[in-house]
Amino acid sequence: MSELHFVKGHGTENDFVLIPDANGRVELSEDRVRSICDRRAGVGADGLIRVVRTDACADPAAVAARDQAVWFMDYRNADGSVSEMCGNGVRVMALYLATHADVDVRNRLPIATRGGVKTIEYDGAEITVDMGSPDVLSDTRISVADRVLAAKQISMGNPHAVAWVDDLEQVGDLKAAPGFDPDAFPHGVNVEFVTRRGERHVAMRVFERGVGETRSCGTGACAVGITAALADDAERGERYQVDVPGGTLHVTWTADDRVLLTGPAVLVAEGLLDI
Amino acid sequence: MSELHFVKGHGTENDFVLIPDANGRVELSEDRVRSICDRRAGVGADGLIRVVRTDACADPAAVAARDQAVWFMDYRNADGSVSEMCGNGVRVMALYLATHADVDVRNRLPIATRGGVKTIEYDGAEITVDMGSPDVLSDTRISVADRVLAAKQISMGNPHAVAWVDDLEQVGDLKAAPGFDPDAFPHGVNVEFVTRRGERHVAMRVFERGVGETRSCGTGACAVGITAALADDAERGERYQVDVPGGTLHVTWTADDRVLLTGPAVLVAEGLLDI
Repeated sequence: MSELHFVKGHGTENDFVLIPDANGRVELSEDRVRSICDRRAGVGADGLIRVVRTDACADPAAVAARDQAVWFMDYRNADGSVSEMCGNGVRVMALYLATHADVDVRNRLPIATRGGVKTIEYDGAEITVDMGSPDVLSDTRISVADRVLAAKQISMGNPHAVAWVDDLEQVGDLKAAPGFDPDAFPHGVNVEFVTRRGERHVAMRVFERGVGETRSCGTGACAVGITAALADDAERGERYQVDVPGGTLHVTWTADDRVLLTGPAVLVAEGLLDI
Repeated sequence: MSELHFVKGHGTENDFVLIPDANGRVELSEDRVRSICDRRAGVGADGLIRVVRTDACADPAAVAARDQAVWFMDYRNADGSVSEMCGNGVRVMALYLATHADVDVRNRLPIATRGGVKTIEYDGAEITVDMGSPDVLSDTRISVADRVLAAKQISMGNPHAVAWVDDLEQVGDLKAAPGFDPDAFPHGVNVEFVTRRGERHVAMRVFERGVGETRSCGTGACAVGITAALADDAERGERYQVDVPGGTLHVTWTADDRVLLTGPAVLVAEGLLDI
């Protein structure tokens, strides 16, 4: 194997290995992704993002977006499988493009993903991504720590169930997945617990399906922001602070039914693999 | 902060960030070590090793070893605290010196540590470190998964209790520390569970005090190799294979009462921090 350039970064402690590959020359098998993302035998990350130009990538989502976006986010989960989109990951990729690839992100930057073209805005400190329109579905119930809780059912492309709690500690250690209605969620569900911290300010914990409790989840924060705005009967366009275990995000549900996710991105290291 | 060179490597999946600092110019505070070793907000590792010349380091252990060793292993735990020695870490450091710092390790290479000067041998594939002499102490007992087990008490500079089991699964998920005799181990103890795999071949799991279950522990593998040799009434110099969750180690208790730990070391990445 020849040496491979990488960058490591994170958004609210959801961390990624980026593989810069503007010209589409890097082949990454599932095994290779898994070994790079292995936290002890590799560099370690929640996921891997190959940063490639749409005109140098044969993925149908990249091909379809060639007239809308120069860059494609080829996102892989740590287990090597392909994934659609990651709200924290796309912010980290945008920061990389701005600081290491001479891409002008002061204006709105479209980034193609398997979940559609996402628009990024970077104010020099925080990065905002337009996560698209939510689907607010019928109420549901989840169970955790021997209690059954009412929950809001929201799709952000992926399914979420959001339950209010008085205290984020009361749901216990979240070692096991919360219970949910298998008819409503035949493919499982991401579960968020939310509590109030102040006016337009909430805090959450998240159990991601197939993963477990994580430090942050971009779509989960969006679902929580919407749940809070609905509970407040807030006007569209109100900005909510959503504290996650790994940091602070902001969520705005706009008048034209888009969800804007704003938060920090950090690049911590860059170098070569296979040394 | 200026950019800082780093290398990441592992020995049987016990992983380390190495900071090459031959001339002793790098200052690393506890906070800085902790943030580098953070698995999501940093590069992530079990520990950090500053690779410095003894004549460029004011640590008393480095100063005392200047006429015996050119290189000093400045080992820090992931929580930022200083530590004496790490049998997996010193092998990874030796591989770095051999492959990236032009150090001839074909002959025996002394490396100074806070646990004394350790001698390394590298055969081009695996790396052997002389871990010094063990102290075999009186038998003790530990408790795990509602059972009490007889255990061998062995000091390798740090305390170990080694218990035979029929099956490594029978000790459960090891989420909690095994129980031990607080009079025998006032500062806690590392607990190993060992089972037979064949002639001079055992497998183990380890619960490291203050850490939890880990993929590998060099001194733990030594304590297990000694326990197996004692149980077999083996001649000194017999080589034991010790399978750990992260790979395979070999342990030899020599006629002159030294313990030799042999195993692989891998360098997976190198680059810059604070980009």
